[in-house]
Parts: sequence; structure tokens; C-alpha cells
Amino acid sequence: MLDSAIIIITCSDKPGIVAAVTGFINEYNGSIINLEQHVDTQQSQFNMRLEWDISKFKIDNENIHATFKKEIADNFDMSFEVHFSNEIPKIALFVSKLSHCFYDLLLRYQSGEWQVKIPVVISNHRELEKSVQDLGITYHYVPITSDTKQQQEQKIISILQDNHIDLIVLARYMQILSSDFINQYENKIINIHHSFLPAFPGAKPYHSAYERGVKIIGATSHYVTADLDAGPIIAQDIEHVSHNDTVEELIRKGRDIEKIVLARAIWKHINFKTLVYNNRTIIFT
Amino acid sequence: MLDSAIIIITCSDKPGIVAAVTGFINEYNGSIINLEQHVDTQQSQFNMRLEWDISKFKIDNENIHATFKKEIADNFDMSFEVHFSNEIPKIALFVSKLSHCFYDLLLRYQSGEWQVKIPVVISNHRELEKSVQDLGITYHYVPITSDTKQQQEQKIISILQDNHIDLIVLARYMQILSSDFINQYENKIINIHHSFLPAFPGAKPYHSAYERGVKIIGATSHYVTADLDAGPIIAQDIEHVSHNDTVEELIRKGRDIEKIVLARAIWKHINFKTLVYNNRTIIFT
Amino acid sequence: MLDSAIIIITCSDKPGIVAAVTGFINEYNGSIINLEQHVDTQQSQFNMRLEWDISKFKIDNENIHATFKKEIADNFDMSFEVHFSNEIPKIALFVSKLSHCFYDLLLRYQSGEWQVKIPVVISNHRELEKSVQDLGITYHYVPITSDTKQQQEQKIISILQDNHIDLIVLARYMQILSSDFINQYENKIINIHHSFLPAFPGAKPYHSAYERGVKIIGATSHYVTADLDAGPIIAQDIEHVSHNDTVEELIRKGRDIEKIVLARAIWKHINFKTLVYNNRTIIFT
Amino acid sequence: MLDSAIIIITCSDKPGIVAAVTGFINEYNGSIINLEQHVDTQQSQFNMRLEWDISKFKIDNENIHATFKKEIADNFDMSFEVHFSNEIPKIALFVSKLSHCFYDLLLRYQSGEWQVKIPVVISNHRELEKSVQDLGITYHYVPITSDTKQQQEQKIISILQDNHIDLIVLARYMQILSSDFINQYENKIINIHHSFLPAFPGAKPYHSAYERGVKIIGATSHYVTADLDAGPIIAQDIEHVSHNDTVEELIRKGRDIEKIVLARAIWKHINFKTLVYNNRTIIFT
Repeated sequence: MLDSAIIIITCSDKPGIVAAVTGFINEYNGSIINLEQHVDTQQSQFNMRLEWDISKFKIDNENIHATFKKEIADNFDMSFEVHFSNEIPKIALFVSKLSHCFYDLLLRYQSGEWQVKIPVVISNHRELEKSVQDLGITYHYVPITSDTKQQQEQKIISILQDNHIDLIVLARYMQILSSDFINQYENKIINIHHSFLPAFPGAKPYHSAYERGVKIIGATSHYVTADLDAGPIIAQDIEHVSHNDTVEELIRKGRDIEKIVLARAIWKHINFKTLVYNNRTIIFT
Repeated sequence: MLDSAIIIITCSDKPGIVAAVTGFINEYNGSIINLEQHVDTQQSQFNMRLEWDISKFKIDNENIHATFKKEIADNFDMSFEVHFSNEIPKIALFVSKLSHCFYDLLLRYQSGEWQVKIPVVISNHRELEKSVQDLGITYHYVPITSDTKQQQEQKIISILQDNHIDLIVLARYMQILSSDFINQYENKIINIHHSFLPAFPGAKPYHSAYERGVKIIGATSHYVTADLDAGPIIAQDIEHVSHNDTVEELIRKGRDIEKIVLARAIWKHINFKTLVYNNRTIIFT
Repeated sequence: MLDSAIIIITCSDKPGIVAAVTGFINEYNGSIINLEQHVDTQQSQFNMRLEWDISKFKIDNENIHATFKKEIADNFDMSFEVHFSNEIPKIALFVSKLSHCFYDLLLRYQSGEWQVKIPVVISNHRELEKSVQDLGITYHYVPITSDTKQQQEQKIISILQDNHIDLIVLARYMQILSSDFINQYENKIINIHHSFLPAFPGAKPYHSAYERGVKIIGATSHYVTADLDAGPIIAQDIEHVSHNDTVEELIRKGRDIEKIVLARAIWKHINFKTLVYNNRTIIFT
Repeated sequence: MLDSAIIIITCSDKPGIVAAVTGFINEYNGSIINLEQHVDTQQSQFNMRLEWDISKFKIDNENIHATFKKEIADNFDMSFEVHFSNEIPKIALFVSKLSHCFYDLLLRYQSGEWQVKIPVVISNHRELEKSVQDLGITYHYVPITSDTKQQQEQKIISILQDNHIDLIVLARYMQILSSDFINQYENKIINIHHSFLPAFPGAKPYHSAYERGVKIIGATSHYVTADLDAGPIIAQDIEHVSHNDTVEELIRKGRDIEKIVLARAIWKHINFKTLVYNNRTIIFT
């Protein structure tokens, strides 16, 4: 695998941005592997993802951010992130009792499909504790009631900070996080909702889907915002169903879509291929 | 093609219904080609579609309904319909200015894909009038304002009755029909809505889809009820989209889904493969 | 869950079969829950699946097969199988080193998604042995070389017989079974092939797909016959890919399709919804 | 709509290409709207599509190609094409008797969905002649037999040249074009094949699909090469089918996929979003 760096940039559109950025890469001996740039002409917003070979790059990894900021980003008032292909994002899985998404993620982790580290699982139940014993993951049982919510969320945040968590994945976690909590992890919490949003937000979407007699069911993975089930959508997919499908059948079929859609969203995030602005995502290819 | 009859039955479930019905077919020398039966165990509702070869059937076509009613249906308090494979449903197309679904249907008609007759088109605009001239279809221009609605709907109903219309297809018809009108054509009006319902009901769903940043768009074909965009769903499908897609792109991509989904719904209806109860459809295979 | 029996029938088409079968069910106080019947008019072949409530059925379960044979099946020269909703099929998983399908199946098993028993895993490698320790499954390491093939297959057959295996699932098992072996388990061995057959049979289909520059990849689950990758297809699905996808990406994306398609095929089989004739399957809904 | 230019570049990868190209655009006051760049690291091949606003560009449209060649392309030994957003590709439709793809394309043309000009239709049959009369399209009836092939292809080429045709679309055209013909229109002939290639090449794929008992059917649109049904694939899609589907049903369902897939491929081509190398396509988003 190539040793590469990735930069994701968003700013107001102006002439010369791409030339400036690629000139910078070139000047310091970087070799561009991939570049995707897109101007939202309605909003006049410039968005770009650029990956370059850093094997001969003349700036040390730890100085790339600061150098780029000074030489390029400040001139264009850019928001930007720099990542590295050998970076290993640290993920915390949040789970309640439902195991299908959770186990699916663990298997991808265990098999090495993803280049990530999962140091902790947070759960308000003990049911799934045993499953992570052999994987070097610490399972934190943090039950939450309306009375203890504030205090328990503080406890969770301590755990996340201690473990330098980069991404939180709600794998059918049945608690609603507070705005305070969410604001500390903006665009760093991925949820899976078991419907094709905006249809059937909230609880029991498969029951509602059955009632409505829809011919497709779906799943939606999105970044969590304070507005329930209304955050920026990362991935969605659907499955065809029929009148033959009882609610139980919808739930069973839905599990497979949930697993796949959540995994796709995480894949995009951990490969630094997502960018959020105006409550919408740009998903690079 | 076989000369066959189709019966569609719905009633409260009781033991012996299938045996009674198939015994009836057998007794009069019918030969069953296809039988799909499904009990909604939650509702204890029996639903069945049966097609049989009538080439040697001992009851004349025009007497099948009455004989079946007397000998079988009345015993089980059935609702049922009898159709024939050589039956040619008469369809009225309702259209405004948007042509894509309308033309798609005309081409299927013209090419003989469907065994139907389209005697009339009803429109509140004149734009598409020329397109049906060579097809033996009468184009009725019936403009509707809030003041003239009741009277114009009466006019439309006269046209439909004069032409013995069996099915009304709203091919992106931009008028909302009155409850009075709809009640006269229960489960006989098919609409195409340009979203995956129940998401984005009402006007401008592609604009809403863009705003929400969804990763799929869809279309839904349903029977029209007095409750707007809430009738029994016949067919749905979706297309994947991305942040690259402007509203105009969503509209362009959506047209193809709308055409396909509407055509699939009509296909099921004209082949007598739909059954409605409790605002849900059973779509036979 | 209802206590029910399922009968699957195939025979030459004749008038009166459905009436005879449903009359039989009715006569002995069975109540039909589901009936799907289909005549292949080209081949004049009658196919049917019927499920009925046996809570008040007057024939004991163990006598249903014999009674039906005598009273009905023999008159129509039927091939038929009788199953029960509380039947628990016994599955043997065959696996080599690739774990994704294998683990996916184990999770479905462990979570109770499927009403089956998996007493044994057969493998020509030891890599996955540890994974089944806690699940009450016996892992049989049976390495096969061209020299030992006949003898080792005999050993495997002994294991299968000892465990009363009903279904063999090849979860990316990298050995080709002999015709002798296959013939003993006709329509009882399900394989997953990692392409949309008949495209890319044989080894390394993702490499071939990459070479050909296809825009979709797929997976096919089929019953194994002596003719490699040419058995009756049970389920297929695809995923869209692009020029961006390297062979490694195709392999990664393909794993999810393989898992889903294999699981769908097994689901149909263990719910007694498959019927094979003329190297084609009928998959009941 | 913006007044823009599009450049598509392919060459051996070297450092500094993107910087050189975007520097060129910037230097002459162009403003980049979209840039997609992708290095095939296996082949070390650089591929890029760049679109820029030319409203203030300091080079006249007719000089862009030459100036870019001299200042940039020659240094990197690039193959490249320059197009303009207001360019109107001229398309020739080739058709035999089957009308579904042909009519679908005509409707898209007529409704203004595509910014193209279709001056001519070429056909070896007269059946569809009437359909283009009102559209300002000249229908050329050019029957071909094995004896007249060479001469008739010459006649066709004359027609194409007289009409300055940029793209040939084979809308289920039932003739095989000679290598000589194809070589004159390299990557400028789009065909629709009615299967998911490489499965079922050649004639009667739906019949073969039925025989094989597949659970999906598909369509493939590709550039035509001398190697039958083996050219670079532009677009593919599929539809699920079942044992219920007769060959006639497969043909009927297939028509809709063929129409959609062909239209998608043409859309990509006329928006200058395709690039061919090594018998594979890059399809820009």
C-alpha cells in the first residue's frame, strides 16, 4: 500500500483554489493519486478531496497541516482536515441488546477488513459483554435512566477521551444522546436507522412500514445531530418486500440492510471520504 | 395464448375454502393453471387468485359469476371478481403538461405490449393533444378551476361512462380529484407519485429530497383514495443518487423511475393481479 | 407460531390435482394457510407448495406421507415431500480458510435467526477451528489431496450420516466434490459462487470481472451438481461497481453480496420453499 | 447554464500533471467547476476530467486545443479531448425492426432531455420509417445482405460523413458491422446488448437465460469493437426474475432495462464523461 496523505477542503469558491493546492503538493514533491473536486454552484461552495503520495514529500507529516494552513488555507479561508493512509481511527461502539449490527462490525474488525482500532464498547446492557472478551476490547456497562443521564454521559465522555476515540458508532444503540454530548462529537457519531429516512423516523419503523403497506423497506446511516433522525445522510439502501412479509419478516430482512448500510457508512468515514456542510454530505468515490 | 378465467377472492378465513373453490373448478371441467393463496393470519383474512383453462369449462363465461356466487361465494361470504384472459380493459389517461409518463404509456400501447384499449385522454391542458391524433384516441380538454371543479368533474365522469372506462391512470395529472369522484372509481384510479412514499408526499418531492440530502430517490404507484398520497401502494422503486445531483438531475433521473413504476403497476392491474383490503394491496406474482 | 405441515409436489399436469389435494386436506380437517401452484405450460409440469394448519388434522404426522401417497399421490404419479413447521433441519457447513460467509452463517445460527441445528463443520484446514468451540459444533478437520480424495470423502460421508445431516452448505469451500459424493446428496448441497453465473464460472471471478471492466459484480447460490458451477440457481444478486474499484475492492464488496445471497438461499431451503426440476428451481414466495 | 469547457486527459502518470493543468487553467483566468482525477496505479496511467468556466477565459475556444497541446500536453505526452458545454453532438441512430429502444431515444430527443441533434436514422428495414417524419430526421433505408455489405457500409459512411456524425447508437440494430467500419468510429459506436455481459453474448440471450434458470436478467451498453459483444462496457443493470417468468416475460421485462441502460450510456457519452483505455471505460460521475 502507498504511503499517502489525504486532504479534505471546503470553502467559498474562488478562482485558483485547485491550482494553488496542487501547486503546493507539486512544489514539495508530492505526487497526486486521486483528486475529486466539486463546486456546489448553487451555494458557491468549493469542496475537494485530494490524496497524494508522500514517499518523497518534503514536509514532515506532523508539519503538513501547519504549512498548508499558512501557505494556502488562510488565503482562501478554508476549512480542511489532513489525514494519512496509515492512520488508524479509534472507534467506540455503542450498543444495547440487539446484536446483528454489532456482531457484523466485530467480524469486519476481527477479519482485518477495516484498518481501525476498537478499544471500547459502551452499552446500557450487559447482554453482549461476553462477545468482546477475546478481541481485546473493553466493554463498559453504563446503564442510563432519565435521572442519571447527565452523569452517565459524563462518564462515557471520560472513557472516550481516555481512549482517544475518533468515531462513535451507534450500532442500534437504544438511547438518545443529549445535545451536549452530540456537540462534542460533531460529525463523529454515525447512527443506523432502520428505515429509508425521512420516511418512518422514530421508533418501530418496520411496524409503520407494515401498516402503510410499502413495497420497499430500507435503512439509513447518518451523522447524529441534536435533531433526531435528521442528521446528514451518509448511506441508504432498500430491499423489496411484499404483502407476504409479516412485521417479523420485515425485521428479519431489514437486519441485512442495516448491517450493510452501516458498514458502508463507516467504510466511507474511516477512508476519509465524507464531508459535511449544510446538513448534507459529500461522499467521495 | 390460453383461453382462461381468473377469479380473485377475499373473505374471512374459514377451513375448506380452497377445497370448495377448486372442487367447483374441477367439477365443471376447468383445469387450474395458477393458484396463489395467502391467509393474513393477523387479520384472519383469506385472499386468493386462481386462473383456470376454460376451453372445456361447462359453464358459459357470462354465467360463471352468478353460478360461482350461488354455489360457493355466498356460503363463505366472499367478495370476488371474475375476469377473462381475453378481456380488454378500457383505460382513460389523465394528463397535464408533463409528457414522460404519458408518452411511455402511449408507446407501450402502440407497440402492443399491453392488451388494453385507451379510448380517451383527459387533460386540463392542450399541450399534449397532438400526440394522440394518429392513435385513435380522443383527447378531451377539460380545464378545471376551483369554481368549475364540480361541474367539470361531472363532465369527465360522463366521458368515462360513455367510454365504459375500467381504469383511470393519472400520468402526472396535476389536479386533485374530489372525494365524490374518487368514490365512484374505488381501486380503479392509479396514480404515480414521484417519491418513495410515505417520504415526501405532496408537491415538489425532488426539491425536498435535495434539501434533505437523501442518497436514494424513488417513485410510488398507488390506488387513489380521498386521502392524498396515502392510498394502497401497488409498486415502488428507487434510484441511487449522490451529492453531485442537482434538483434538475434528480428530476431527470426520477422520470425514468416514474415511468417504470407506473408501467409495472398498470401491468399488475390489467393482468388482474391486484387485490386491495385495509388500505394495503396484495400483488400476486 | 402455527403448527403446520408443508407439502411440495411436482408431477405431470392433469386436471383435478389441486382439487384432489385440497380436498384431502379439507377432509381430514386441515386448514390451508398458504398455497402456491404453478403449471409450467411449456413442459406441462405441475408444481405446488401447500402449507396447512395441522392442529386439528386427523392424521398423525408420521402417517401423513403414507396416507397422502396412497390416497392422492399414486393416482397422479406425484413426486412429493412432506415437512413440518417444527422440523429442525440439520446442516453441515463445509469451509476452507475464507471466513466471511462462514462467520455470517454462524451468527445467524447463534442469534436464532434460523430454526436449524448445525452439528458439524467440515474443513480441509484448521484455521477456523477455534471459532466454533463455544457453539456446540464439532469441527472435523479432513484434509484432502488428490490421492486421499476418495477415502476422505468416505470419511466425510460417515460424519454426515452419523449426524443425520439434511443439508450441506459450502461456505466458500475450496474443494470440488466428486460426482459420487454429490449424487448421494442431490439437491441437498448449496454452494455460493462469487459471480453472477453463468458469467465468470470457475476460479478467480473477481479478477476476471476486473479484467473485463464490468460495471456490476454478483454472487450466485445454487445446488451443486456434478457439472461445476452449473447447478440449479436458487438466488442471485449484484452490486454496482466502477473503474475506481481495484480487484481488492471487488473482493471486499463481493463478500457482502456472497453473504447475503448464500443466506437467502439457505433461508428458502430450510423453509421448504425450493423445488428443483430440469436443472431449474422453483422458489416459492 | 454555465458556459464551460471540458478536457479529458489520459497519459502515463508522472508527478506534476494536475498542477500543470490546473495552473494552465488558472493562468488564463478559467475557474474550475469540476475535477475528477484518478491514477490507475496498476498500469501507472493518469486519467482526468476537468470542467472549467470559460466566461472570462483568455483563450478563444477554437485555440484552446492547440494552446493546451503546445504548453501542456506535449510535455506529458498526453492524449486529450476538449469539449464545450454548448456543443451539440450529432447522433445517428441505427435500427432494425424492434422499436422500444428507438422510440425511447426519440422521446428523450423530442422532449429536450438531451442536448443533441439526431439528423439521421439508418435502417435495414422500412418498418420504423414513419415514426421520424415529424421530427426533422431523415430515415435512410439501407438494406444489407452478405453480398452488398461492403458497398452498403460505404453508403452509410457517406451519409454519416455528410451529416458530421459524432456518435452512432445501435438501438437493437440487427446487423454486425465490419471491422473496417468500426475502426473508423472507434469509441464512437454505442451498442445495447440484452444481457449482463459477459454472460449470454450473441443471439437470443433471453432464451439462454430462461434455459439456465437465472434469477436476474440484465442489459449492457458498450462501445463496439471488432470483437463481438466484447467492447468496453459503459453501463449495466439488472432486473430480478423468477421461475414464473416465461421467455416472453423475460423479453418484456428486459425491454425496460435495455431502454434505461442504453439511455444512461448515451447520457454519459454526450456529457463527455467517458474515457476508454485498455478495453475498459472510466465513467466520470
